[in-house]
Formats: sequence, structure tokens, C-alpha cells
Amino acid sequence: MLPVPLDIRVAPGRCEAGARRRPDMTDNSFPPLPPQAAERLRAFHEQLETLTQTFVGYPCSQDYNYQEIAPFLRYAVNNVGDPFAESIYRENSFVFEREVVDFFKKHLRAPDGQTWGYMTAGGTEGNLYGLYLGRELFPNGIVYYSEHTHYSAAKIVRVLGARSIMIRGQDNGEIDYQDLRETLRLQRDVPPIILANIGTTMHGAVDDLSKIRAMMKEFAIARYYIHADAALSGMILPWVKNPQPFGFDAGIDSVSVSGHKFIGSPMPCGVVLARRSHVDRVARSVEYVGCMDTTIAGSRNALTPLILWSAIQRWGEDGLRRRAAQCMELADYAIERFTAAGVTAWRHANSITVVFPRPSDAVIARWQIAPSGDVAHIITLPHVTREMIDGVVADVASSLPTRTAAAVASV
Amino acid sequence: MLPVPLDIRVAPGRCEAGARRRPDMTDNSFPPLPPQAAERLRAFHEQLETLTQTFVGYPCSQDYNYQEIAPFLRYAVNNVGDPFAESIYRENSFVFEREVVDFFKKHLRAPDGQTWGYMTAGGTEGNLYGLYLGRELFPNGIVYYSEHTHYSAAKIVRVLGARSIMIRGQDNGEIDYQDLRETLRLQRDVPPIILANIGTTMHGAVDDLSKIRAMMKEFAIARYYIHADAALSGMILPWVKNPQPFGFDAGIDSVSVSGHKFIGSPMPCGVVLARRSHVDRVARSVEYVGCMDTTIAGSRNALTPLILWSAIQRWGEDGLRRRAAQCMELADYAIERFTAAGVTAWRHANSITVVFPRPSDAVIARWQIAPSGDVAHIITLPHVTREMIDGVVADVASSLPTRTAAAVASV
Repeated sequence: MLPVPLDIRVAPGRCEAGARRRPDMTDNSFPPLPPQAAERLRAFHEQLETLTQTFVGYPCSQDYNYQEIAPFLRYAVNNVGDPFAESIYRENSFVFEREVVDFFKKHLRAPDGQTWGYMTAGGTEGNLYGLYLGRELFPNGIVYYSEHTHYSAAKIVRVLGARSIMIRGQDNGEIDYQDLRETLRLQRDVPPIILANIGTTMHGAVDDLSKIRAMMKEFAIARYYIHADAALSGMILPWVKNPQPFGFDAGIDSVSVSGHKFIGSPMPCGVVLARRSHVDRVARSVEYVGCMDTTIAGSRNALTPLILWSAIQRWGEDGLRRRAAQCMELADYAIERFTAAGVTAWRHANSITVVFPRPSDAVIARWQIAPSGDVAHIITLPHVTREMIDGVVADVASSLPTRTAAAVASV
Repeated sequence: MLPVPLDIRVAPGRCEAGARRRPDMTDNSFPPLPPQAAERLRAFHEQLETLTQTFVGYPCSQDYNYQEIAPFLRYAVNNVGDPFAESIYRENSFVFEREVVDFFKKHLRAPDGQTWGYMTAGGTEGNLYGLYLGRELFPNGIVYYSEHTHYSAAKIVRVLGARSIMIRGQDNGEIDYQDLRETLRLQRDVPPIILANIGTTMHGAVDDLSKIRAMMKEFAIARYYIHADAALSGMILPWVKNPQPFGFDAGIDSVSVSGHKFIGSPMPCGVVLARRSHVDRVARSVEYVGCMDTTIAGSRNALTPLILWSAIQRWGEDGLRRRAAQCMELADYAIERFTAAGVTAWRHANSITVVFPRPSDAVIARWQIAPSGDVAHIITLPHVTREMIDGVVADVASSLPTRTAAAVASV
């Protein structure tokens, strides 16, 4: 990675003023890191630097260096509770978190003043929150999700003790609309809680929200809930010219977007947004059990809001738009190279997930690729270089049986 | 805080080797932080430095400076999944996390080879995990917890959709054993899932695990589950001479301990431990729904394991024991000063939570004190100085009605 200037003037680890004001800390000062421990961290750092060279299989950007966070590594900062409320715990970064949530609200097309949200520890917490809201609104509702949904959906449904039906998926990663329609038709008496994928983990496929809403209309289902898992694509679709329907304007009730995916963060984090009317109804219903906390987590990371805030400040909307365009170009480059090497590779519109046949285990391990059944993918995020793609393509092509490569080459 | 040397030799933000190896990153480099954004962070840092002077009301240590983490703020590190399994996502800190979990296992007295655990994003996730295991084992079980339990318990029970009964609490913060016994007696046909407090949030009270287990014996209840919320005290009791029963040797099935509380971390984190037999049974039962992930979170912070590992390396067991003793001394000093000022103040054995009558709102706001009903507390953690305690005592004493002070002084 490139050198990044340290922009704030607080030298890490130095704060004589603080030391002066707390005089009897001297007996109790923080012990130094033993040399062998420092050596372990140094070796781990070196190992990471090597691993970055082959980090192409996961949807996490790595083109950053948030050194501005370093001076905050000595405070018990904690964003416990609702970021839009006041807290007695004042060592929080609520003001930054609110700006991040507002940025996501704007770009997820949330209607003014009608949406609430907070920063999560990652996509799973956001999906748990959204489906929790859905289940609170419709306690006997059925959660529907396609078989291409991230594996955490099954875990969440289990934790919530919710009824659920898994819907078939199409080969391209989208939900099988016919199967969903047929299943809904048979359960018209039960409010559906739809978990829609705005970019599936494996294929980058977007479930068509207009088709899903059309089914509700067709069956005159008035009481339903749509939660969108937009982990990666939720911060990509705002920057493309013709996005698939993905935001609140497309009728979703809540959405979970990761912060460590397209934007990038050294710690997993995310934003969950939901229609305020749902949040308020659930808040009222849980108030009597003595729980006023609207978040799932309680104690929450106060550094990840600084990180996303900083990224937004650094990139700006134009920067993120440019960044998304470069990722798309890189995806096309990858497909071109795969095709030239005789390997079938493709991507959805507005997706940077390039899908190809599952290579050998050695190639999977080398490039940290998460396969699923007979397919695999790379994600052409900003830290991925053309050189890296050339390497993946060469390795994948030579690992696949000649039969596949030949069959494709003859098309 | 005192200056802390930067122990590892990787200069933040510099890595020419990495830049060389990824040549086409130049067009796409991380933009600098705009000056006004840097200024906002600088002002926030200054504000935190001021707030640290009055940070006495929350159970979070603040006597650290983990600058050794800074060089890792540029990698997409992620401890997704089970830390004791292998992962294709190799940019993880599993080796460090395993050592942290093993350290907690040892000091929470887990029997060799019979306990599994992982690092959570905080106490709530650990409590959710423990109660989730309990509910999976006993789907129709009733969760019992005292009214002094942290408010997140109600939220967790709600999320899990579990049956629950809140038990009266004693004025000293312990569960009302009589009420628990009577309630259990009336529900002998339903497996109890006990959420025991090993240090309540407000009073630092420890629910007596021997008494609770004696009730199970009395009513011949063979199928029960005990989860311990040991957020703060779970890392204090291992270091005192005569701890109350608190660990696996006291019959618990799972325990959640926070990392950002006694040890201290700039981001909330924790460790959850559970008997492996329960984890395995639940893993088997969820396997058929296609979810092999044993953690609640999925994507998990890989820096907090480095932080706790680093703290353990720095302090060692002796250092943590010394640190706990100093906190106890400081708690006694606080009680002495409160008493001298005519204010009733007390603490439980082995607790560093000093309880006193609720002062005025101005004092609560100034010292970031979380009150509950008519009581308040300070937590005498290592970053708290005698000077700070003198300040709190003076403010609390002068804010309380003379009546209270006089009444106490005459005792």
C-alpha cells in the first residue's frame, strides 16, 4: 500500500497533559510490551503483508490506512445505546456515527425523517436487527429467503425462533420467483417477512424487489415486511447509472449494509436502517419489559464510526462513484482475461463479483477464494490489481480440466 | 495518560514494499484526509482527553495505550467463523484469539478440553450466545433472571422469543433466593435456564451459585442450564484470594466476560465460553439447516484479539492480580472518604463497585455516573485516581440533602 500521511497532530502515546492531571497513575502505568510479544506482532504484520498479495476472494476492500484512528487507541470510547439519543456515557463518537448513518440514509434513498439506524458490528447484526423487527411486527410471520442467501440467515432465523421457508434459487443467484410466488400463494394467511438479497454473497445477484412487491399485490397481501441484505452492493448501487431497485424507494422496510466491504475498514462494521414507524412500534412494545435500548448490541464500537466517517470525508460521493466505476472496469478486465484463457466467467450488471467454475483446492487456498458447489468468484475491489487478476486467471485456467476450457473456448 | 513506547518497528502508513508490489494502485490511492476533517478529529480527541478526567461511573478501564495495533489499521483483517477451525479467509488473528480464549478458560476454571469459546463484540453477544445455547437445549425452558440484571437481558430474551420470569432482587443487588426458590417450585416441570449475575451492573453483587444449585437438587431438577453474566467480575475474581463461586467449577454451563471492562480496550469486546458438549449438541442440531458457523456474529473483529492478547502479555497474571488489589484499595479509600463526608457508601466483597445514594443530576452528568432508582455508583478502576475520588465525594456530599448526610453521620 502507498504511504499515507498522518493527518492529525496528536502523536500516538504521548499526552503529558493527561499524565500531569492524573499524578498517581505513575505506580500503575501500562507495562511495556515484552520484546517477544512485539516480535510476534511484527511477524504477524509481515504475514499479513504477504497475504494481501493474494486477497481477491472476499468482498472486503483493502485500499486504506486509517492512521488517524491510532490516537484513539487509548480511550474507553463506546457508542453504547441509541446514537440519536443523549447518553450519560459521553466518551462516545455519536456525532460522527450520526453523520455516517445520515450518509447511508441518503444513498439508500430513505424518505426524510422517516428512517432510523445505527452502526452495527457487521452484516449479521444488521440482518438480525431487520428480521427481529419483522418478527416483532408479525410474530407468526414466515421468513422467506432464497437458498443463495448468506449462511448466517439460517442462524438468525434459528436465534429468533422464527418460522421460515427456504426458496429455490436460480443458477444465476437470484431467487426463483416462480417458487416464491407459489409458496406465497399457499400461505396467504400468514404475513411474509422477505429477506431479499441485494447482491448475493456468491453471485452478486440482486433479487428483484419490483417482482416481489408485485406478488404481494397479486395476492392482496397487505401485511408484509421486506428486509434487504445489501452487505456489499448497498454501497455500490448508489454510485452506478442504472441500479436495480435496491433502496427504500423500492419498498424495503429495513436494510443492512456492511462498512468493511465496499468502503473498507480494518474491523467489520455496518449500518442498519429501518423505517422509523416499525422501530417505534417495536420500541413501544418492548418498553414494558424494561428495555429502552433500541440497538441489538448495547456497548458498541466507537472507532468504526470514525473510520467510516473518515472514509466518507476522504472519498466523497464523487470519489466513491469513481472507485465503483474502476471496480466495474476491473471486473470486465477479469472476464476478458478469463475468456481469453478459455474459462467461462461472468458477472451481473452493476456487480463486481466475477463468477467462474470452481478451481482446484490449491488455487482456492492460494487466492483465499470461497467456493460454493461448482462455482467460485473473485471480487474486483479497489485493492485488486490487474497483475493479481492475471495471476488468478492463469492459476484457475491451468487447474481446470482441459475439457471445460475447451468447451468454453469453442462457444 | 503516560507516554507509552511504540514497540513494534513498523512505521504507521509506510510500506514501500507493498506499494512496489502493487504498481497499478497509484491511480487509485487512498485520498488524504481533508484539513477540516482532520481538525474535527483533533477537536474530538481533545474533548475525550477532557472527559477522561471525570470518567468514574462506568466499568471500563482506561489505563492503556495500544499503539501496537496502529500498523494493522490498513488490513481487511477479519476473524470470521470459529477461531479453532481453519478458514479460507487467512487475514485473521485466530492464533492470538485462541490464546486469549485459553487464558480466559484457565481463569474461569474450565475443565481441560471440555470448553469452547470465542471473542465477541461485547457482553451482550456473549449473553445472547449463552442463552441461545440454553434455549436450544431446552426450547420450552424458562429463563430466570433477577430484576438487577443488566437491561440487555430483557432484550435478549425478547430476541430469542424465550419464556422468562423476572425474579425479585434484594436491596444489596443479589437475586432474592426465596423468590427464585418459590418460583422454581411452581415450575418444576419446565427446565430452568438461569441467568446468574457474577457482579451486577449496579451493585457489583454476585448471585450465589451454590444456593442456586442447591435449589436444583432440592427440587430434583436434573435438566437445567446456568449462564453467568460475568462482564466485569469475571476478570476480577480470578485475581482475589477468596472469590465467590464464579467459574465452571461452580457449575456454570456458559459465561460471558467483557474484555473492555477490567482489562480494558478502546473497542468493546469480550469472551464467551461454554461447555463443549452443549456447543456440539447445538451445532449438530443446526447443521441440517445449513449453518455450520458456531459464532453469533459471523464476521468478527480481528484487532480486539490482538488488544486483549497484548494486554495479557503486558500485565501477565501477576500484573493483573496486583492491578485488582490496587482497585480494591482504591474502593476502600472511596468508602472511607464518602463516610468521612457523611455519605453512606459500601461495596460487596471482591467488588470495586462503590455504591452510594443518588446525587443530583448535575453531579451525575459531570462524573458520567449511571444511576438506578435511588442509588448510584463509581467503579474504582486503575485509571481512577484518588484526586478524582476526592472530587466525586465532595460533589456528591454537597449535592445530597443535609438530612441524608446527617442521618448517616449519626449512625
